[in-house]
Amino acid sequence: MQQITRKDIAGMERLYRGRLINSLSGFKSVNLLGTVNSEGQTNLAMISSVVHIGANPPLVGFISRPISVPRHSYQNITATGFYTLNHIHADIYQQAHQTSARYDAGTSEFDATGLTAEFRGDFAAPYVAESRLKIGLQFREQFDITLNDTILVVGEIQEIWLPEDVLGEDGHVDIERAGSITCSGLDTYHKTERLQRLSYAKPDRKPKPLE
Amino acid sequence: MQQITRKDIAGMERLYRGRLINSLSGFKSVNLLGTVNSEGQTNLAMISSVVHIGANPPLVGFISRPISVPRHSYQNITATGFYTLNHIHADIYQQAHQTSARYDAGTSEFDATGLTAEFRGDFAAPYVAESRLKIGLQFREQFDITLNDTILVVGEIQEIWLPEDVLGEDGHVDIERAGSITCSGLDTYHKTERLQRLSYAKPDRKPKPLE
Repeated sequence: MQQITRKDIAGMERLYRGRLINSLSGFKSVNLLGTVNSEGQTNLAMISSVVHIGANPPLVGFISRPISVPRHSYQNITATGFYTLNHIHADIYQQAHQTSARYDAGTSEFDATGLTAEFRGDFAAPYVAESRLKIGLQFREQFDITLNDTILVVGEIQEIWLPEDVLGEDGHVDIERAGSITCSGLDTYHKTERLQRLSYAKPDRKPKPLE
Repeated sequence: MQQITRKDIAGMERLYRGRLINSLSGFKSVNLLGTVNSEGQTNLAMISSVVHIGANPPLVGFISRPISVPRHSYQNITATGFYTLNHIHADIYQQAHQTSARYDAGTSEFDATGLTAEFRGDFAAPYVAESRLKIGLQFREQFDITLNDTILVVGEIQEIWLPEDVLGEDGHVDIERAGSITCSGLDTYHKTERLQRLSYAKPDRKPKPLE
């Protein structure tokens, strides 16, 4: 095994360090974050930092990068109070990746990448029509991580849209069956293959496969 | 597509809601969190909420559940200041899952599950010997999410241990090659298969496969 120390990390070239450190947390969720500003201009951004915070109330967080440069998604979320998170599957990950290009403020990443903005019912933020599993959220709170000027944005799930055949009788969602994919590092996408679903762990016995 | 509303979620049975909401953020990292208390008693806990926060300084976060019940990992981290995160591969995920059983305070999950506590150099927290990719962290800051009494724990990477053949020339780590796996929901484990690594996105061209 190779050791890399804190001092080694400090001395690394910026992009090398970014690729390395981004790889270490493990496989990541990939979601498209849909927002709209007060003039009706839509925005779409891929994020890999979505994290489950709790089920009751249903809370989801993500890390927003420093707002020292304009962050349209963050501005739209705090201005309108609403946003969507949309899972990505193998047919749209290249378009999803492309949303991370630096388009000018007047360009919607929906238009630039060919993904379709879809307003459902009276929910105030756009979904991605091509996505198979998506949630609508209301902004609840932000936490300023002054160590590096990032922000933990916490929202509450207001509605869920998913295919009927992926929701199990016990509430478990088979996101692999929905085609959701995962990513690693800054730029690498992976499909998944289930190993097993395991029973609830108890001290006196080994976990058993479920289903 | 099926819609599930905020009101539907509020009316769900507790475990059903937990399984559903835990599935929605997407695929998750799975890490074993290694700590030790001031008496030398080790603790090991599986967590699926690790999130990348930034590369410079190298910061990693995770969500700790409410401390209204004893959380040995959290107590050890704040008492000693140090902890480890260890990737999981297909040969050890059942043991990793088993660490989530409620063992009494005097039992180390290392002993109970057959995983091996390994102290490397003078780093103050135990690694998992069987893990192939692991990082040692120093506690930096906590953020209290009063919406549901969880805590975002932020640490700074002090050292990295990884196989030499998974670190690319540009800093990207091939965690799939290291055997790292991912999970979904509360209890389902998946291996991965790479789709592609994509070039940095620019507005004027489509992303290209790397390698």
